Amino acid sequence: MGSHHNGDRASSSNGGAALVDKDVDFAQYFCTYAFLYHQKEMLSDRVRMDAYYNAIFQNKHHFHGKVVLDVGTGSGILAIWSAQAGASKVYAVEATKMAEHARTLVKENNLQDVVEVIEGSMEDVTLPEKVDVIISEWMGYFLLRESMFDSVICARDRWLKPSGVMYPSHARMWMAPIRSGLVDQKKGDYDGAMDDWYNFVEDTKTYYGVDMNALTKPFNEEQRKYYLQTAMWQNLHPHQVIGIAAIIKEIDCLTATVNDVLEVRSNFSSSITMENTRLCGFGGWFDVHFRGRKDDLAQQEVELTTAPSVDDGTHWGQQVFLLHPPDRISEGDCLNVSFMMNRSKENHRLMEVEIGYEIRQSSGRSLPTLKNKFYIE
Amino acid sequence: MGSHHNGDRASSSNGGAALVDKDVDFAQYFCTYAFLYHQKEMLSDRVRMDAYYNAIFQNKHHFHGKVVLDVGTGSGILAIWSAQAGASKVYAVEATKMAEHARTLVKENNLQDVVEVIEGSMEDVTLPEKVDVIISEWMGYFLLRESMFDSVICARDRWLKPSGVMYPSHARMWMAPIRSGLVDQKKGDYDGAMDDWYNFVEDTKTYYGVDMNALTKPFNEEQRKYYLQTAMWQNLHPHQVIGIAAIIKEIDCLTATVNDVLEVRSNFSSSITMENTRLCGFGGWFDVHFRGRKDDLAQQEVELTTAPSVDDGTHWGQQVFLLHPPDRISEGDCLNVSFMMNRSKENHRLMEVEIGYEIRQSSGRSLPTLKNKFYIE
Repeated sequence: MGSHHNGDRASSSNGGAALVDKDVDFAQYFCTYAFLYHQKEMLSDRVRMDAYYNAIFQNKHHFHGKVVLDVGTGSGILAIWSAQAGASKVYAVEATKMAEHARTLVKENNLQDVVEVIEGSMEDVTLPEKVDVIISEWMGYFLLRESMFDSVICARDRWLKPSGVMYPSHARMWMAPIRSGLVDQKKGDYDGAMDDWYNFVEDTKTYYGVDMNALTKPFNEEQRKYYLQTAMWQNLHPHQVIGIAAIIKEIDCLTATVNDVLEVRSNFSSSITMENTRLCGFGGWFDVHFRGRKDDLAQQEVELTTAPSVDDGTHWGQQVFLLHPPDRISEGDCLNVSFMMNRSKENHRLMEVEIGYEIRQSSGRSLPTLKNKFYIE
Repeated sequence: MGSHHNGDRASSSNGGAALVDKDVDFAQYFCTYAFLYHQKEMLSDRVRMDAYYNAIFQNKHHFHGKVVLDVGTGSGILAIWSAQAGASKVYAVEATKMAEHARTLVKENNLQDVVEVIEGSMEDVTLPEKVDVIISEWMGYFLLRESMFDSVICARDRWLKPSGVMYPSHARMWMAPIRSGLVDQKKGDYDGAMDDWYNFVEDTKTYYGVDMNALTKPFNEEQRKYYLQTAMWQNLHPHQVIGIAAIIKEIDCLTATVNDVLEVRSNFSSSITMENTRLCGFGGWFDVHFRGRKDDLAQQEVELTTAPSVDDGTHWGQQVFLLHPPDRISEGDCLNVSFMMNRSKENHRLMEVEIGYEIRQSSGRSLPTLKNKFYIE
């Protein structure tokens, strides 16, 4: 019943993309967060930790004596910090068995009188009261992978007081043209897989009397998708960014609706800043800001960025969309890019992307627009 | 409804292990078989392919003019061979979208008048008639991982004529003591993970004011399970087998019930055959035989074995259960081993294993029994 209900709600509120059945969602998505190893990976991300720590402790006025909700508390870290910053009450909601560990940590750190850990999904739990602050670390790769912000919106609409504050308050998605040796590696892997296939078809016919050539087309599509069209996780070096980065999405966490984040559409231009290089693809990342709200500003604004960095890389890395073949390009050229991203029909937590671009060379000549399909898996 | 029904049937027929919810089962288990890359991996296993090819074509009397059922046809290979061997009709059942590719292959190989591909789970489909032969490649790692034999039993009980034949007809599980450098590698990985954890707890306390020491115990259990207690896939070299291998399970595919395969219990002895070595763990594998039935024997018996081999390794490899720390052991010593395997409570397709052993040294001295828990994931 639950899954059917989810299904109905899905088609009306999820832009046609089916919400994954609840049990399947748990088995595929939530369960990864039940592992301490995964929590530790996020807790070891110093850039992430510093940002949230500073956002809270440099803005105690937002927390002192206030009621806080931590959406997706995981190990409980944000809830614990909120309590240490003086919150009178913290509700820490966590869908997985990690909630038990959060409870343990809360007790060990003597905060059980303030922090109440609730195991359940945000959409299902009931709080005894509305809250002054919603804090959450909901960002997935390239911001929206995992679609966890939906749960934050749900929490906000149900539990945030009219004067309440969102932590973070704002989020942005960025994109820039890049160069990367990965494009040659993936092309090599793909070519190798196809060479291997042709030998396989030959052998299967010779030794086993079965002609598998009819499957070459679907096999090829499967390998193209896997090797060439799936967005890759990378920690890009700033030197790999070959053009001016552009903001492709801006979100006000206080007012955004699920509808606002179902789709990302952006047309932007990017001037190339590197001489004689290759346009190997595009890199995508995000930043979030802790600004408070207009009538209750943060005393100290904090930024958490996942832009390519030498020293301050994060566990999010960037998402890389590779172009095959790469284009020769140089300083003075300009790219006109059309970007579109929406949720996968099969799984609302994954994304489908279309990137089209046109190269305006410094000579004035224009190279035709090509559209490329990608998958954020 | 489907999943609840499965649940009821599960508790009564699955030894207490919950059958995974149908949709979850599809998302976690079946879906991997929908990839051509995975099918190709199995189709490229020459030992596997040769065994089934020879079993069929060296026993055409079992197929000529007969009605055949292929359980879990995948790409359709066994169904196609059955038709080429002269079957009058072949029903090829496949739960995933791979069925569409099987249909394509059947057509391209001009067998659409004989082979009917049916997309659906074996438990749900209805055939127009009973069959003379059930052929299936159902074996998972260490034979029973995936619990696919349940579906073959279901097919047999519903659709096999009283005089029908099973392909394969018999299956056996084997076990032997082994040596392996993997034991040092995994111990190193585990130690490294724990060292890293202790530093992490220190840093989190110092920089972020949160004491995570209370999670050391569960983190340690999680890493022990992952690094030390999870059965590993390996293609063992015969020189790694340091004692006499033993049969720990025998299955007659014509008569076995689901109850017979819910649990594997065996006490066996193994004489050590290598001087001055280390007992690093146990290797497990299986073989199947194509013998026909007593009143309708195969003309040519065929064996498919996954025992450690230099030239004839298979994609199944062996399952390796490592012991920490390894024991010094030598020719003349003898192991008394107790082996127990049953289905995981959370997922009937995965296994939990307990291995206890006692070393009877050639001197007559006996080293105490130790019991070790393992997981086949």
